[in-house]
Amino acid sequence: MMSEITVAAPATIANLVCGFDVMGLAINEPCDTFTVKLSNAKGISLKHTDGFNLPTDNAKNISAVALQALLDACPDVNGFEVVCHKVIKPGSGIGSSASSAAGVVVAANYLLNQRFDKKALVDFALAGEYIASGARHADNIAPCIYGGITLIRSHKPLDIIALTPPPLAVTVLHPQIEVRTADARKILKPHVSMQQAITQWANVGALVAGILQSNYELMGRALQDVIVEPMRKILIPQFDTVKDACMQAGAIGGGISGAGPAMFMLSKTEKEAKQIELAMQHVYNKTDIAYRTHVTSINMNGVRVISNT
Amino acid sequence: MMSEITVAAPATIANLVCGFDVMGLAINEPCDTFTVKLSNAKGISLKHTDGFNLPTDNAKNISAVALQALLDACPDVNGFEVVCHKVIKPGSGIGSSASSAAGVVVAANYLLNQRFDKKALVDFALAGEYIASGARHADNIAPCIYGGITLIRSHKPLDIIALTPPPLAVTVLHPQIEVRTADARKILKPHVSMQQAITQWANVGALVAGILQSNYELMGRALQDVIVEPMRKILIPQFDTVKDACMQAGAIGGGISGAGPAMFMLSKTEKEAKQIELAMQHVYNKTDIAYRTHVTSINMNGVRVISNT
Repeated sequence: MMSEITVAAPATIANLVCGFDVMGLAINEPCDTFTVKLSNAKGISLKHTDGFNLPTDNAKNISAVALQALLDACPDVNGFEVVCHKVIKPGSGIGSSASSAAGVVVAANYLLNQRFDKKALVDFALAGEYIASGARHADNIAPCIYGGITLIRSHKPLDIIALTPPPLAVTVLHPQIEVRTADARKILKPHVSMQQAITQWANVGALVAGILQSNYELMGRALQDVIVEPMRKILIPQFDTVKDACMQAGAIGGGISGAGPAMFMLSKTEKEAKQIELAMQHVYNKTDIAYRTHVTSINMNGVRVISNT
Repeated sequence: MMSEITVAAPATIANLVCGFDVMGLAINEPCDTFTVKLSNAKGISLKHTDGFNLPTDNAKNISAVALQALLDACPDVNGFEVVCHKVIKPGSGIGSSASSAAGVVVAANYLLNQRFDKKALVDFALAGEYIASGARHADNIAPCIYGGITLIRSHKPLDIIALTPPPLAVTVLHPQIEVRTADARKILKPHVSMQQAITQWANVGALVAGILQSNYELMGRALQDVIVEPMRKILIPQFDTVKDACMQAGAIGGGISGAGPAMFMLSKTEKEAKQIELAMQHVYNKTDIAYRTHVTSINMNGVRVISNT
């Protein structure tokens, strides 16, 4: 029986343009690593080797809360020791908290001979996400665990649809500003026009079809958000200019990652993704805002095992 | 060269539950037949052999207006002679006007060696639909021409996505009452809550995934309309009772066909479809409303050629 395992849990992009609140995807970089081992001591012992100053009180630590939810469902297991090495910066809009929650439960499940299915793991991880966001929302956790692109049809009951996309390159722009999730939420109107809603669900349907039919052009036409992006983009400096430049540089489409401030763009190839990165840099170099960019690709498998003994 | 052709144009079901205004499907029965031949006389000469008393003035006849739109794009063609035999009752909510518009343009296109693609044919047919409904709306015309299930992502520009579903049986209930489209429209609120809109687009995405993954269970879970059905169902007597009885009888899902008054239910097999028909009859036999039911199946090819010479 495996006694120790190290996994890599990927960053994720939620609110996939028209698929606001329901669609997300996993990317290959950045990712966090978590080392988990079975322990004879009761409960969870957790430490961080990163420099993010995350809470060490188990009741406030996302990984500990998620893992405790799994532990509560395993009366035969005493506890776990966990070492977290976070790389995904909290608050950047690419699923740092989801990675914290998902990584440890997937790792623990390997140690328990995979007694839980992916949906059950999402459910445990949601306990951790709740600590982070005050909501049991799976739009980052689901792609982190399933990989590829996921659609959450319903939270109650939890209904996750795994969509296998064609290969996609991803370029991420991370302005080093803070967008408070509370502000990003407050900016959303509680009602939308029927006509906009219809346009949005036509695009969601078309995006799913484009993904499943491996039709990049259709995906591109469908990656339009007529509801949330127009409200939220004002929180991200130069949003329209960046987006226009990226589309000219060959992006299929893209938008706000999660609640921001990160932006992302999809493209067919790494070559295009690098051109898109240059386009982002070109726009942001003219501002006085610090930023980072990186080029990665869609992660088809979610949390993966790095080593086990 | 072919000189005369007879086609069968199928009934269609628009407003596919959550896919209100954007998704529709074609069924095998009932269907209209149209015989079209090239004519040396200028313009369109059209007659009806059915008993629906449809307008014989070309400017007011849906088939004539649609065919004229095609003729206007063919300076080398003098005209057409058309015989319409309508079977799909106008105003029943299963795409009678779309069949009138689509059937003749598809037939004419065969006579012209298929010089136009399906999308162009939809565009011609829309001219006819405009006469019927005052809107250039393709949600019945597209499935009538493409067959299977179609998703209209956008009308301007026209973006039609053909979805190939698994085999489906279809049961239709047609209460012999009139639901005026104007009333059905008036009953819709101009705004919806953000939360309902999100639920709806999650279901649309899931329905498209269910169709393309041939996953009947997923289709069933996704066939929920939280926006339009709750408003419009009051126009259809016994709607909830019928629906509940059909679900108990094995339906995957279903709802209002078009703007009503027809209702439809999907199922995996003809056997279940017949059980569903019995369930519909059981409910309506207790009312004093005249009605018809029929069992059919999804039409995978749209308008089809019956004979040509």
